Amino acid sequence: MNEFELIAHLTKNLPTNPSVVTGVGDDCAVLDLGVPDKLILFKTDAVVEGVHFTGETPPEKIGRKALARCLSDIAAMAGTPTAALVTVALPPDFDAEFVAKIYEGLNALAEKSGVAIVGGETTTNPERMLISSALLGTVPRRNSYLRSSAKVGDAIFVTGELGGSIAGKHLDFEPRLAEARWLAEHFTIHALMDLSDGLGGDLRHILQASGVGAQILKTSVPIARAAKLRAKENASAKPPFIAALTDGEDFELLFTTPTGDTVKLLDAWKQKFPDLKLSCIGKIVTGEGMVIRDKMGTHTFNANGYVHFS
Amino acid sequence: MNEFELIAHLTKNLPTNPSVVTGVGDDCAVLDLGVPDKLILFKTDAVVEGVHFTGETPPEKIGRKALARCLSDIAAMAGTPTAALVTVALPPDFDAEFVAKIYEGLNALAEKSGVAIVGGETTTNPERMLISSALLGTVPRRNSYLRSSAKVGDAIFVTGELGGSIAGKHLDFEPRLAEARWLAEHFTIHALMDLSDGLGGDLRHILQASGVGAQILKTSVPIARAAKLRAKENASAKPPFIAALTDGEDFELLFTTPTGDTVKLLDAWKQKFPDLKLSCIGKIVTGEGMVIRDKMGTHTFNANGYVHFS
Repeated sequence: MNEFELIAHLTKNLPTNPSVVTGVGDDCAVLDLGVPDKLILFKTDAVVEGVHFTGETPPEKIGRKALARCLSDIAAMAGTPTAALVTVALPPDFDAEFVAKIYEGLNALAEKSGVAIVGGETTTNPERMLISSALLGTVPRRNSYLRSSAKVGDAIFVTGELGGSIAGKHLDFEPRLAEARWLAEHFTIHALMDLSDGLGGDLRHILQASGVGAQILKTSVPIARAAKLRAKENASAKPPFIAALTDGEDFELLFTTPTGDTVKLLDAWKQKFPDLKLSCIGKIVTGEGMVIRDKMGTHTFNANGYVHFS
Repeated sequence: MNEFELIAHLTKNLPTNPSVVTGVGDDCAVLDLGVPDKLILFKTDAVVEGVHFTGETPPEKIGRKALARCLSDIAAMAGTPTAALVTVALPPDFDAEFVAKIYEGLNALAEKSGVAIVGGETTTNPERMLISSALLGTVPRRNSYLRSSAKVGDAIFVTGELGGSIAGKHLDFEPRLAEARWLAEHFTIHALMDLSDGLGGDLRHILQASGVGAQILKTSVPIARAAKLRAKENASAKPPFIAALTDGEDFELLFTTPTGDTVKLLDAWKQKFPDLKLSCIGKIVTGEGMVIRDKMGTHTFNANGYVHFS
C-alpha cells in the first residue's frame, strides 16, 4: 500500500452521523449542530520543525503560521473563525521564552482575527517541535462554497500573486477571511478554496470534484516578485511561471464565478481591496484537466506539475 | 521560567470573544455558538510514541486510545461527542498497514460512540508517531459541570477502581459517556471531571477551583486489582493505596453531589450499571487540600503525591 492508496483506504467508510454536511475532502469539515442560521466549520492543521519551519525561524512567526494556515481554510469556506485549541509538542529541554514567543505570534493573529484561544496542551515530542491547531468557525447556511461547485462557463479567479512563498510569504501571509466573506456577500461564488499546494494541483481538486476542465491563460497568471527573483538569481530554480503553478503555501483564494459577473467583480474588488490584486486567469470548460493557452497554442499540465508543450 | 510558570504565563490574557463560556482550565472548552438548547464542547488531545504508547503497542489500541482520551473529556462534562478530526504524524518510512490498523481501532470506538470522523491529515514527524485528536461535542444548556462547582457538604464519588492503569487499562478503558449523561439527567451533580492524572492531583483541581477542602475515607477508595498485584510482585512498586491516589490514566469519573442523595444514588446506580462500581469516598469540607482519614487518624496529602502521617 503506497501513501495515496493508504489515504484512499483510510478515508473510505469513515464513521459518520447526521450532523455531517461535508466530511473529508474539502478545506474544512462542515457540520450542522443545530444553529438556526449557521453551519459549523471544523479544521485542524499541524506544522512541524524541519518541514514547515526551521530552527532559524523566529518563534513569533512559527506561532503565527500555526494558526494562519487554519484561518486560511476557514477563509476557503467564506467562514468566520471563532475559537481555537493549540497543541504544542516540545523536546523536554525546551526554552520557555521561545515557547512564550510562539504564543505571542499566535495570539496576536488570533486577536486580529477575532479568534478565542480556549485551551490546548503542551506535550512531549523529544526530537523536534510540532504545533497542531484545531479551529472552529461558522458560515451562514445560505450557501456552501465547496470544491465541487464549479460550472462550465465559470470564470476562474485568484487573489494576490503566486509562487516563491518560501522566500518569506509562507510565514507572513494574510488569511483572506475578509475578502472571502465580502465575495460571498456580494457575488455569486461557485467553487472556492485556498491555495496551499500550488495552483496546478489545487485547481485540479476543483476540476476533479466538479467533473469539469479548465483553460488557463498563461499571461493572466499573476507571478510573485519572489518567484521571478529566485529564477533570476539561480539558474537551477524553476522558471517563474512554473513556480506560480507548483510552489506551495501561497494561501491565496482560488474561486469560480458565473462569467457574466467578471467585469463588475473586478471593478468592485478594486474599490474594496485596492492593495490586493485580483486576477481572472481563465475559465471552466467541459472535459477534464487543465490546459494552458499562450501565443504558441495550448499545453497540457499533468498531475506531477510539469507543463508539456503539445 | 519553569514549566509551571510558563503555563501560567501562556494561559493568562489569552484572546477571547463572546462565544466563550469556559476557556482554559476545565476538561473541555465550552462555547455558545447559538444552538438554542445546547452548548458546544471542544477538546484536543495528543498521544506520542514512547510517552503514551510504545513501539510494542498493538496499532488498533493506539488508535483507540487516541480517541478515547478525548471522549473521556467529553464525558467529564456530561456531554455527547459528535465529530472528530485526526492528525497522524509519522516517520516517512511508515508502514501503511500499521497506520490502517490505527484507524481501525479509532474508527471502531468512534462508531460505538456515535462520533463522525470528518477528516484530519497525515503529516511528517521523522522520529516517532504522534496522533492528535480534536473532538466536538454538545451538552444541554441546563447545567454545566465544572471543576469549580463543588460545595461544602457534598459527597465525593468515583466510578470504577483506581491505580495500576499502566498494566493495560490505559489502552482499553471505556470513556464513561453514558454514565455521566445518566448522572446529569437523574441527579444533582455539582463538580464533575475525569481522572487522568490520579485522584490525588485531580481532586486538588476541583478543590482549588471551588475554594474548598476534602476529607477522604481511606478504606472507601476503590483500588484496582492491577495496583494490588503490582505491589505484591514488586517490592519497590508503590503501595496499592498510593497507586490509587497517584497513578495516571484511570479515566474514571470523579464527581460531587449534595450529600442527601448518596444512598438513593448508590441504589439507582447499582440498578442501572450493575457491572461498574460506584464508590462514595469522602466529603467536601471547608478549608483547602485533601485530608485522608483512617483508623489511626487524619493524614495530609501534598501536591507531590505523598501521604504524610501527621
